[in-house]
Amino acid sequence: MRRFNELEPMRRWLAWMWLCALCLLAGCAAPQSQTRADLPSWADGPSRSAIVDFVDAVTRPGSPDFVAPDARIAVFDNDGTLWSEQPMYFELLFALDEVRAQAPSHPEWNRQQPFKAVLEGDHAALAKSGERGMMEIVAATHTGMTVDQFTQRVGNWLRAARHPRTGEPYTSMTYAPMRELLDYLRTRGFKTYIVSGGEVEFMRPWTQAAYGIPPEQVIGTGFTTEFQAEGGAFQLMRQPKLEFNDDGPGKPVAIQRYIGRRPILAFGNSDGDLQMLQWTAAGPGRRFAGLVHHTDARREWAYDRNSSFGRLDKALDEARGKGWTIVDMEKEWKRIYVFEKP
Amino acid sequence: MRRFNELEPMRRWLAWMWLCALCLLAGCAAPQSQTRADLPSWADGPSRSAIVDFVDAVTRPGSPDFVAPDARIAVFDNDGTLWSEQPMYFELLFALDEVRAQAPSHPEWNRQQPFKAVLEGDHAALAKSGERGMMEIVAATHTGMTVDQFTQRVGNWLRAARHPRTGEPYTSMTYAPMRELLDYLRTRGFKTYIVSGGEVEFMRPWTQAAYGIPPEQVIGTGFTTEFQAEGGAFQLMRQPKLEFNDDGPGKPVAIQRYIGRRPILAFGNSDGDLQMLQWTAAGPGRRFAGLVHHTDARREWAYDRNSSFGRLDKALDEARGKGWTIVDMEKEWKRIYVFEKP
Repeated sequence: MRRFNELEPMRRWLAWMWLCALCLLAGCAAPQSQTRADLPSWADGPSRSAIVDFVDAVTRPGSPDFVAPDARIAVFDNDGTLWSEQPMYFELLFALDEVRAQAPSHPEWNRQQPFKAVLEGDHAALAKSGERGMMEIVAATHTGMTVDQFTQRVGNWLRAARHPRTGEPYTSMTYAPMRELLDYLRTRGFKTYIVSGGEVEFMRPWTQAAYGIPPEQVIGTGFTTEFQAEGGAFQLMRQPKLEFNDDGPGKPVAIQRYIGRRPILAFGNSDGDLQMLQWTAAGPGRRFAGLVHHTDARREWAYDRNSSFGRLDKALDEARGKGWTIVDMEKEWKRIYVFEKP
Repeated sequence: MRRFNELEPMRRWLAWMWLCALCLLAGCAAPQSQTRADLPSWADGPSRSAIVDFVDAVTRPGSPDFVAPDARIAVFDNDGTLWSEQPMYFELLFALDEVRAQAPSHPEWNRQQPFKAVLEGDHAALAKSGERGMMEIVAATHTGMTVDQFTQRVGNWLRAARHPRTGEPYTSMTYAPMRELLDYLRTRGFKTYIVSGGEVEFMRPWTQAAYGIPPEQVIGTGFTTEFQAEGGAFQLMRQPKLEFNDDGPGKPVAIQRYIGRRPILAFGNSDGDLQMLQWTAAGPGRRFAGLVHHTDARREWAYDRNSSFGRLDKALDEARGKGWTIVDMEKEWKRIYVFEKP
């Protein structure tokens, strides 16, 4: 008995070492190979094959297309690529809700367009105010407060708000296949970024939980901020002045400014992503350019060339001409949203 | 013999598993504890103690000041904090060399200030052109080309140029103690960033090799770039227009734009770093704010309140008043440069 006890710590230690070794094997070796367990929401089809082939080509040691892990940069648009964007960009729905919520402290909004239209539910007047009106609403609801205060508001809204069609929280209307793709890439050494026309601080509070993407890997449109030091307190105040519009040709510009190197994989869904896809695809070596094509009117929405939000026209032609991957959402995604059962 | 051969693969496999387990132990356990081997170029002194105490407090599980690894953001100024900045910012020495190198294709520079002054070595005229003249020289040598072309030029210069006093390549005039500090922080889960007044694309080509900091963790002053698509080729052209001045109050603004969260550690050496230090130090929980004080006229340079480059005046007073760490380079650094023998 005594001898057994003396052996026991060593056995336990050996068992622990085995466990460590197994963990190591699981962590280092397994994710390198592609298994049936990967990308479970993707149907066997051309898009899944294109992704798997590309990732294999750039990660397999000895492959002629091998890319060192630190250069495995992957960029994703957000609206319409990682979550839905209908009946309008979710950030605009946030802005409209904020106008209603903040109206009591802005009595002048009852007389002033486009705010009056929002408060009266006057869709015609709101539509008439156009892009300029929308920008006024966004500026009024996104600025004039500290970064921390804005983050707080976004968080409050996300907890309470529900999508008008699905009744789900907005962060549940993220695409399960894309979340799987992000995970798949990261376990293979990719660094995943969001490059979105959405305002950067609107996204940062929730991208880690929704996509596994930390704040420092979120690039977006931005308002200027001002560093204020008053009475020993330091604040970053958000100013009603657009600093950068991260859309169209702004996307490759922002990618260079923030990341400083060209991605090897890019995914978008609209003409606003065209230049990001061009910039990525034109780099040396093997590259991947992909489009999410909204073809599923039943489970999500079906739209492309004629949509007000996420218009996909020129980029669709270019993708077809250049043989980029076009994901047919209806045929290739077994599941759309993360709230659906796998 | 046969039996032995049958056993051999298993033995090899067992040996390999042991190795894995040992690697795992070495990789996970060892770096957490602080040993004499850490920070070898730092003398035992108040700065080293302050660093080690801080890092222990924010990384030790169960510590009241524990910070989750993903929030361990550390920011460093570059000029005068990670490498020298005398007799002037190295980037200005690059710009002056570039004026001389490009002069043959710019005959007008022989008649036009401040370029004429550079080509004639007329220090008085150059000084007279002031900050505006310097900006003209920087714009002329940093823009009007693609990002790739500029990166190439920086690389060429770094390979050939030598510092006028030490005769060493500029990237060898990086501080060994700071490189050790960067490594020390990273092995403890910190993400290290440069936040510098230097132009961002001037730094990115060499920060990985010099500091272990990848391009996407370099934040700096930036010129605007324009996405150009001509004849199927896509380029980012650098424009002679300053987009952002990453100095003084610009530093906390840039930190929020790029990183999206407040650092818990910041290191600088001049008044241009004051707001970054204030912003970092004022965050909730335990924070570290540090200044490199250039006190070593023999091995490096001694300057603070009266220097044209890296003036340290207000930030020195504030650091003393608030008890920030002030590194006395002469007393606390056993070795200055990476080219000196340890």
